[in-house]
Amino acid sequence: MGKRVINFNPGPAALPLPALEKARDEFLDFAGTGMSVLEISHRSKEYEKVHNEATELLRELLGVPTDYKIAWLQGGASTQFYQVPVNLVLPGKRMEYAITGAWSEKAVKEAALYGEVKIVATSADQKFSYIPAKVKFGAGASYAHITSNETIHGVEWPYWPEVPSDVPLVCDMSSDFMGRAIDVKKFGVIYAGAQKNVGPAGVTVVIVREDLLTRAAKNIPTMSKWITHTTENSLYNTPATFAIYISKLVLDYDKQIGGLAAVEKTNREKAKLVYDAIDKSKGYYKGHAKPDSRSIMNITFRLASEELETKFADESKKAGLIGLKGHRSVGGLRASLYNAVTLEGTRKLVEFMKEFQEKNP
Amino acid sequence: MGKRVINFNPGPAALPLPALEKARDEFLDFAGTGMSVLEISHRSKEYEKVHNEATELLRELLGVPTDYKIAWLQGGASTQFYQVPVNLVLPGKRMEYAITGAWSEKAVKEAALYGEVKIVATSADQKFSYIPAKVKFGAGASYAHITSNETIHGVEWPYWPEVPSDVPLVCDMSSDFMGRAIDVKKFGVIYAGAQKNVGPAGVTVVIVREDLLTRAAKNIPTMSKWITHTTENSLYNTPATFAIYISKLVLDYDKQIGGLAAVEKTNREKAKLVYDAIDKSKGYYKGHAKPDSRSIMNITFRLASEELETKFADESKKAGLIGLKGHRSVGGLRASLYNAVTLEGTRKLVEFMKEFQEKNP
Repeated sequence: MGKRVINFNPGPAALPLPALEKARDEFLDFAGTGMSVLEISHRSKEYEKVHNEATELLRELLGVPTDYKIAWLQGGASTQFYQVPVNLVLPGKRMEYAITGAWSEKAVKEAALYGEVKIVATSADQKFSYIPAKVKFGAGASYAHITSNETIHGVEWPYWPEVPSDVPLVCDMSSDFMGRAIDVKKFGVIYAGAQKNVGPAGVTVVIVREDLLTRAAKNIPTMSKWITHTTENSLYNTPATFAIYISKLVLDYDKQIGGLAAVEKTNREKAKLVYDAIDKSKGYYKGHAKPDSRSIMNITFRLASEELETKFADESKKAGLIGLKGHRSVGGLRASLYNAVTLEGTRKLVEFMKEFQEKNP
Repeated sequence: MGKRVINFNPGPAALPLPALEKARDEFLDFAGTGMSVLEISHRSKEYEKVHNEATELLRELLGVPTDYKIAWLQGGASTQFYQVPVNLVLPGKRMEYAITGAWSEKAVKEAALYGEVKIVATSADQKFSYIPAKVKFGAGASYAHITSNETIHGVEWPYWPEVPSDVPLVCDMSSDFMGRAIDVKKFGVIYAGAQKNVGPAGVTVVIVREDLLTRAAKNIPTMSKWITHTTENSLYNTPATFAIYISKLVLDYDKQIGGLAAVEKTNREKAKLVYDAIDKSKGYYKGHAKPDSRSIMNITFRLASEELETKFADESKKAGLIGLKGHRSVGGLRASLYNAVTLEGTRKLVEFMKEFQEKNP
């Protein structure tokens, strides 16, 4: 094994080393089967055990109430952008969205194919640098939709919006899912690509309150209906078995280190270290997000020039700090501090930031 | 590493040991990145190299002409059951299907949501034990659809049907894709879940002739449109990076052992060994498929009683021959002889069959 770098990738992202080591050690012979976990049947008792444990760990760690179903699907959050309206839109009832960055914009575009979309709030006026205050969704909507954390812009909802009791709140939680404790009961549906805090790319978690499962019209494709998958324990067709297996190992690790409370505490410490470094840099590093909307997962910041930003990205990479370049659509720099990024790794980033500033005043 | 068994699973299935060993050896540090391949960005140059090599290997080994695009998608062939009509149906033009087993039946059910479906041929009258002869699709259809190999029933098309020149032939090739050489030009679209001959569960290959990419109506979801993915080199959103990486290692191996000609030759030898054992058993083993429709990938057979079949499944498992139980929907026994099942492994199965017959007359 070579030297492991410090991985600030925005997703696919760092995974806990103990989980990876376990996967490597049993890669050719899983649970005494004489087969790789890649080669065992999704109907085998060995796989079903992994599958059910992954679901139960998720339920336990996140506190998912028993009247919510959990499904492990494929196609990323981008696929849920259209599956959400397909499963939830009610005839003649508009869908309501808040737009807080690139991902919620994409979600709106797909929903608009299925009916009227009302934009209840947007922060497009200031380059998606904040979460609008006191957002309130209206009565009579099919559902209300938010994106809890915008991976590209680095803003995260610091509160939950006001939603009428008969309107389910739907949340794309891809990039802060399992990175902080939440009250699942506030939501009708939560969906998240796994490749941030849960596991590798290729599996998407969907959590749906039971009463919403029967909303989908009869004439929609079997694979599009959430109820197909919740009824069949995500085994209607062959699931992404390996991605679910790795997720299970990651969730095992989360539990072992103290669950989501411990995970969130460390995540907040990590984020504070980097935001403090930005705030104390006397304007050398300019944070993109307004302080009250700062993401604890994706810290976006800029330097005085693009040249300096490129230099920062290049030199940090040489120093073993990977993935700090901002998204190609917005530029700048971004440090993604997902669960598997350690405090120690974060401190190295902060040191690097200080040194870089000294050397490049 | 424990003892490796002989894996006759129907999918997820056996993978070539050298590919698995390579994946294990570089599991924690891929290509000198200091990260697992699970942790690297899908936009990194290291991943893009893997991704592009997988596509190019597939193109080379299968002989995919340059006017066909290759996409690596998610959701399995079951998702393509509705994506096919979504992308290909033309207003007022029926879709034509041949039904040869459980999988083509499922495909028809989804297509029927999008317009009129005409069943041009079916073998339901004899429990899907044969491929109807001289199948001919009609002029004026949106497309013609077949399932080249029926994993559950063990029948495989021994010829290609007659299709008018202006009607694209669409083929669900999941369970014999890359198991035999084909002339891609005969098809408008080929799709296949990877978890048989190509790689692990979680990635689906779709090969589309360029002129068909622009058929999809404008108002369908971005993720449903094949052209979204072919235009973006399957990187519109985060793909199933690890599954594509494993597929690349498997395709490397296929190339190394002589390409599809060599793969097919061995597959035919393996299938002949088992079918010969059935035919020479004097009716002890009863093959499900009629001889001219026999699958070289999934060999389905029965014994005189369910008790004996259960005994066969149990004892073969104890002897290290895994996955021989038939699909829960049809019962009986099934040996899946995908590419990574060796001749030696197949011979062990044949020996076991003979011994079992002797001991249980």
